[in-house]
Amino acid sequence: MSSLSAIAIKNATDLWFKQISRVSAIFDACTDAQLEAEIAPGRNSGYYLLGHLTAVHDAMLPLLRISDRLYPELEEPFIKNPDRSGVARPDLATVRNHWTTVTAALNKGIAALSFDEWMERHASISAEDFTKEPHRNRFSVLLSRIAHLTEHIGQLLWINK
Amino acid sequence: MSSLSAIAIKNATDLWFKQISRVSAIFDACTDAQLEAEIAPGRNSGYYLLGHLTAVHDAMLPLLRISDRLYPELEEPFIKNPDRSGVARPDLATVRNHWTTVTAALNKGIAALSFDEWMERHASISAEDFTKEPHRNRFSVLLSRIAHLTEHIGQLLWINK
Repeated sequence: MSSLSAIAIKNATDLWFKQISRVSAIFDACTDAQLEAEIAPGRNSGYYLLGHLTAVHDAMLPLLRISDRLYPELEEPFIKNPDRSGVARPDLATVRNHWTTVTAALNKGIAALSFDEWMERHASISAEDFTKEPHRNRFSVLLSRIAHLTEHIGQLLWINK
Repeated sequence: MSSLSAIAIKNATDLWFKQISRVSAIFDACTDAQLEAEIAPGRNSGYYLLGHLTAVHDAMLPLLRISDRLYPELEEPFIKNPDRSGVARPDLATVRNHWTTVTAALNKGIAALSFDEWMERHASISAEDFTKEPHRNRFSVLLSRIAHLTEHIGQLLWINK
């Protein structure tokens, strides 16, 4: 691994950590009532987006081959179903705690990977297919999840406070 | 430049091109009236965000040391001032055309840079300071502008149609 390659990884992981800090600050600054309200008429609540981001980031643990998911029960209410679906979901205090736990585990895993490890396959592609599609690596997961997170940050910036 | 380094660049530029395609499709699908309306009560219009993204991306041309800006007159109404500031601005049809022209010029420049060129300094840091802060490279500009664009995509997804 050349030092330039390490810098490219630092560029991307710095952005991940920055966006995680920004969104955590938004969630921390909101009361429960603010998170439970729709962000704009007919749009998602902050509560739903907190659960959604927690669930999506939890699923990054196996996708990056760091560990198993910590809270697979979040998938049904926060990925497979939309807000106000009526599907049972953990209360807001629990989801806030899960966000903190998932973020810590994921950040630790992300900080530990070297350039060569980022260039290895992610868990959704077989070793055989990866030889033909070498861009389907862990790094592509990091970048696409930065984009996913940031798309929702744009919406969370519009929470009424 | 190793082939793995080229793949890391492809991962990031693929995401740039994908997000540009997504946002261009949103703008193209909107009537002028839809872009002129506030996206949510009290929030930016699509027109403003179109001008804002065009101005920010135009400024990437010198920042990435590709070329001079094409439309510096966009800075005043779309970066230095907020929506509904009353500052004179080009009409929507003109801004739509400028978006297309800036996007084409920028995409051409982005597609042409090699890994080693991405790892070179951007225009806002001196060669001397860059020796001490080598992460302030063109690649950091690409990643941070992907994030900026994507934050606004999250908002533009909420345009009422």
